[in-house]
Amino acid sequence: MQASPIKKPPMTIILLAAIIVALTVGIVLLLIFIKNQAAPVRGIAPLVTIQAMEPNSAEWGKNFPNQYSTLLQTADNKTRTTYGGSEPVQKIEADPRLVTIFAGNPFSKDYKDDRGHQNALIDVRETNRLSDKTPGTCYSCKSADNPKLWANMGMEAYDKTPFSEMSKQINNPIGCANCHEANTMRLIITNPALDTALKAQGKDWHTFTRQEMRTVVCANCHVEYYFQGESKLLVFPWKNGTTIEDIEKYYTENGFVDWTHTTSGASMIKMQHPDYELFSASSTHYNAGVSCADCHMPYTRAGAVKFSTHNVKSPLLEPNTSCGACHTDVDYVVNRAKIIQNQVHTTMISTEDALVAAIETIATSAKDPKADPAKIEEARKLHRSAQLRWDFIAAENSMGFHNPTEALRILASATDLARKAQLKALEALQPAK
Amino acid sequence: MQASPIKKPPMTIILLAAIIVALTVGIVLLLIFIKNQAAPVRGIAPLVTIQAMEPNSAEWGKNFPNQYSTLLQTADNKTRTTYGGSEPVQKIEADPRLVTIFAGNPFSKDYKDDRGHQNALIDVRETNRLSDKTPGTCYSCKSADNPKLWANMGMEAYDKTPFSEMSKQINNPIGCANCHEANTMRLIITNPALDTALKAQGKDWHTFTRQEMRTVVCANCHVEYYFQGESKLLVFPWKNGTTIEDIEKYYTENGFVDWTHTTSGASMIKMQHPDYELFSASSTHYNAGVSCADCHMPYTRAGAVKFSTHNVKSPLLEPNTSCGACHTDVDYVVNRAKIIQNQVHTTMISTEDALVAAIETIATSAKDPKADPAKIEEARKLHRSAQLRWDFIAAENSMGFHNPTEALRILASATDLARKAQLKALEALQPAK
Repeated sequence: MQASPIKKPPMTIILLAAIIVALTVGIVLLLIFIKNQAAPVRGIAPLVTIQAMEPNSAEWGKNFPNQYSTLLQTADNKTRTTYGGSEPVQKIEADPRLVTIFAGNPFSKDYKDDRGHQNALIDVRETNRLSDKTPGTCYSCKSADNPKLWANMGMEAYDKTPFSEMSKQINNPIGCANCHEANTMRLIITNPALDTALKAQGKDWHTFTRQEMRTVVCANCHVEYYFQGESKLLVFPWKNGTTIEDIEKYYTENGFVDWTHTTSGASMIKMQHPDYELFSASSTHYNAGVSCADCHMPYTRAGAVKFSTHNVKSPLLEPNTSCGACHTDVDYVVNRAKIIQNQVHTTMISTEDALVAAIETIATSAKDPKADPAKIEEARKLHRSAQLRWDFIAAENSMGFHNPTEALRILASATDLARKAQLKALEALQPAK
Repeated sequence: MQASPIKKPPMTIILLAAIIVALTVGIVLLLIFIKNQAAPVRGIAPLVTIQAMEPNSAEWGKNFPNQYSTLLQTADNKTRTTYGGSEPVQKIEADPRLVTIFAGNPFSKDYKDDRGHQNALIDVRETNRLSDKTPGTCYSCKSADNPKLWANMGMEAYDKTPFSEMSKQINNPIGCANCHEANTMRLIITNPALDTALKAQGKDWHTFTRQEMRTVVCANCHVEYYFQGESKLLVFPWKNGTTIEDIEKYYTENGFVDWTHTTSGASMIKMQHPDYELFSASSTHYNAGVSCADCHMPYTRAGAVKFSTHNVKSPLLEPNTSCGACHTDVDYVVNRAKIIQNQVHTTMISTEDALVAAIETIATSAKDPKADPAKIEEARKLHRSAQLRWDFIAAENSMGFHNPTEALRILASATDLARKAQLKALEALQPAK
């Protein structure tokens, strides 16, 4: 049988096969390329790459325009609630008892109501509480430049640099870098003082759930703190725990004094916005697993997009989105908040009256040459104990709502201690039996 | 045409017609009879007819065996909660401050913890607080005989009859007749003092919803009251309202005094279990439309039957049925109750310490011939104000849980007033300036 001659394939067929191979290889390479791209955040590819600890929130805003534009809104909140707001109301004019209560402390000269995140940097620079001795530490909660500065120069160096010196390196208000990691957008603790304070309690925030982080990142700033030693290092007094009694014990043990009260002569502690400590002291919302962000940064909509608003403010200004996410009867819960805040306010004013009476009585007794100095000292210690309790609630930003029963328990105890201080000062004048 | 002869119908046909007519009439009469029967309660025809205001609950129990048998269980509750229970714990032994606080009042001699409804009559007869002068009024909240006695003899005559005399006519413990109307089983107010107190506030309980009645019937007894004038008429001091401030204003205006404190000399008011007043002072549960019965008499099952248990007791003893009807996480709410009660208890003990200090200081100052009598009088008034506030919370049966923030607000104010009393007593000894 004759072998059939091998027939050459036509040129068109060869060309077609080459094109098919080339296209197949091309598609495979494209798929590999796509697969190797960085994981997109929440399914949307970022438009720009954010550098680690980028201080300028506008950069982050290119990828997250809704979060960024709502952050900017914190500059303009003007509506006041009954007991708060975002306008710089001068508290010492609204409540002159504060002048007596803070005698000798800069807060007796300037105690303006706090405003939104976007204004914090302006406000810290304008306060009359600043002096030549003000350390850089005072910028710790005011700027998105901090995480990078802390990483580059270390917190110790940052804190001991004078405030006016640090001003040159600080340009951005509170922003994205204070709570987020740039490449993952996950919530992180950026303030080394908070990391240290948690470690001292045996806690590692890297193990916290996202819902826990939605509270703990607020503790980067919304906590009681003090400036430790000559280097003015930022420290949270949490070694014994975070209740007011734990914090007082800490300060008693380490002998720290914020200032000496010029009228009573007591060694005082100025409390700073312990929102986190009060909220986390077994409040009903905290124990129910509600986070700070659930109420202060509720999920909101812009067109078809749902996101957590970054216009952080009082839930009372937007109760339908804040409270309404869990509570079916928003009018009821708003009324409940009103009742609680009125109860706390009434009680707080009584505590202030007791503090003023204690301060004046101690001053009068201390001037008397017949006064027993040991008893005057006891009276001063009682004044300190009473006032740090009152201030724990007064400096806190919710008029007790973050933890109503705990706030009232603390105020009741503060009133009792203030009256005991007054009694002790009178006792100092009585002849020994 | 010849007329056809009339044919007589056969006898059987006549008989049949008669039977049909008789049966028809009989059926119609039977239907009329059935229609005229009393409406059956909840679809079940009563087995026996209950006479109006029947004092013997066992009679009612024939129609309502589940309600009756659970009512009987109130005799045997033995399990204590942290701050309450149904055993006659002697409070003055558990907390000796009470002996000082109630000096001159029978409560300083005998202050046993209250027990269940079934024991109330036994306990009022056995208390060491009784004397020859005890009026019949003291039976007002202890017996199911009361509605009938009030109807027959009138509350005025009942109240001025000596306790020992009234004993002869009182045989039944608290029972069905105290809250129910016999022929309809609806909830009614049976205590004329409550009817009068509501009318004084322009309220007519006949217009209340059933859910409102499930709270208001408890106010037949669980309220602050006093014995007015020589006839010892039972009166609720609610003319100005039911908050502690309203009640104090009432007593100040009418000059009523329960007893004179033998140590401080103050004109005192003894508060009695104001559960209703505290609960209804804008508490979170009250404002949410929850009734007393919802928590203390929750719906329960016996076989296929669902009914409101009449074993009235602490919801903490049966939180799954009590709290679980509304709350999904019962462990969480029980823990919440525990936290609140601890906070209230701690604060209450501080108030007691302040009261004891005030009482002792007033006594010491009053004995001093140099004391300014006007200031001693002021101190006594402050003692009265402080103690009636404390007692409003102490005599109330929930360790503050009925209204946590209101309880703490009141205790904070009580502590302040007690310390002011102490201060005023010291001031009375100071030479006039």
